[in-house]
Amino acid sequence: MALEIFWGSGSGPAWRVLLALAIKGVPYESHLLSFSKGEHKTPEMLAMSPRGKVPVLRDGGYVLFESLAMLTYLDRKHPTPALFGDTAEEAGQIMRVIMEHECYGLTAISAFSRPLLFGRLDAQRDQVVLAIDGARSELARLESELASRPFLATPKISAADVFVYPQIKTLERAFGKPGAETVDHGLGPLVKVFPQLAAWCARIEALPGYDATYPPHWREG
Amino acid sequence: MALEIFWGSGSGPAWRVLLALAIKGVPYESHLLSFSKGEHKTPEMLAMSPRGKVPVLRDGGYVLFESLAMLTYLDRKHPTPALFGDTAEEAGQIMRVIMEHECYGLTAISAFSRPLLFGRLDAQRDQVVLAIDGARSELARLESELASRPFLATPKISAADVFVYPQIKTLERAFGKPGAETVDHGLGPLVKVFPQLAAWCARIEALPGYDATYPPHWREG
Repeated sequence: MALEIFWGSGSGPAWRVLLALAIKGVPYESHLLSFSKGEHKTPEMLAMSPRGKVPVLRDGGYVLFESLAMLTYLDRKHPTPALFGDTAEEAGQIMRVIMEHECYGLTAISAFSRPLLFGRLDAQRDQVVLAIDGARSELARLESELASRPFLATPKISAADVFVYPQIKTLERAFGKPGAETVDHGLGPLVKVFPQLAAWCARIEALPGYDATYPPHWREG
Repeated sequence: MALEIFWGSGSGPAWRVLLALAIKGVPYESHLLSFSKGEHKTPEMLAMSPRGKVPVLRDGGYVLFESLAMLTYLDRKHPTPALFGDTAEEAGQIMRVIMEHECYGLTAISAFSRPLLFGRLDAQRDQVVLAIDGARSELARLESELASRPFLATPKISAADVFVYPQIKTLERAFGKPGAETVDHGLGPLVKVFPQLAAWCARIEALPGYDATYPPHWREG
């Protein structure tokens, strides 16, 4: 039975898994679910993922949720190219970048971008403004990781890049949302403010198979 | 040069790393820092861990922070016994338990226990009471993981157990803090309410080397 991925368009965690599959060249059966129709919270989905979150991986009788767990599984099942490093030292750095992003970057950058993405700028302008400094600090940290190497944790692309990338693209999307131009955030465009991050995005976007991972509804605007 | 661990007494993340070292039987040089004296935020420490967090690992010229990164490094450097599973399927389940705890369990249980631990029950009684249901739900989920096996993710002890255990002990400590008996929480004692979790704690506490991991200042009361 084929590897199956249940996912939703625009989900950062789902995008991570699709990127890993593209990098490894592993074929899979795609189940694109509609969040607005609640397809991620059907009884079948809740039986696989009790918190109602996507992505979910099914490989024969084996079911897994949590994107980092899925990256771990895929890397053990399909070891080439390795996404968690070739040495203990690399493996440690990769997980360090992942957990710093999980514990600090994700929250700080989302606090800025989510109100814009969900059309809540009018109601939450104060929160957006308050979030700017924290988001800048986390973006600057990522920018500095890229000062000495082409990818976040190691010379080659790793799980750290796959883990962080969707949120950077989500932030860029927030920059283009209605009203974003009325916030003097100074965080973008990336190519001007964080040129290493912009170049790193371009490197990821040049990967074979990248296009199939791009959130379908983002193509519509 | 010996492996060095910089840590603080009572830090859950530090306890995880000490447990992993005990399970693997890896010797290390211990640097126990005093939080109250700010020893975790000296220039030397901030150079190694810019957010001022412990634990920090130094292995010759290699420095690492973030406890899960340290567990990953130690597992690659000292592979026996394996803490991240013997198969891809086990590796996935271990990381799934870790990330569920990181994303949901930690916050839900801390919301209940932290005000008690830091003597803020009077000021934050409403928060403590509001947190009870969420904490119970996460504890029940862990209890259910243990219904069919002796450890959280796999038949043998793994990084998932090491990751979650310190918080369960911290919760038990909160139960004994002044005023805790005035909160009708129904979450403990563990042995009555979550007997599988209590038995699992006892299994971990029977490990050779466990005693050296116990927070020194907890012995004082």
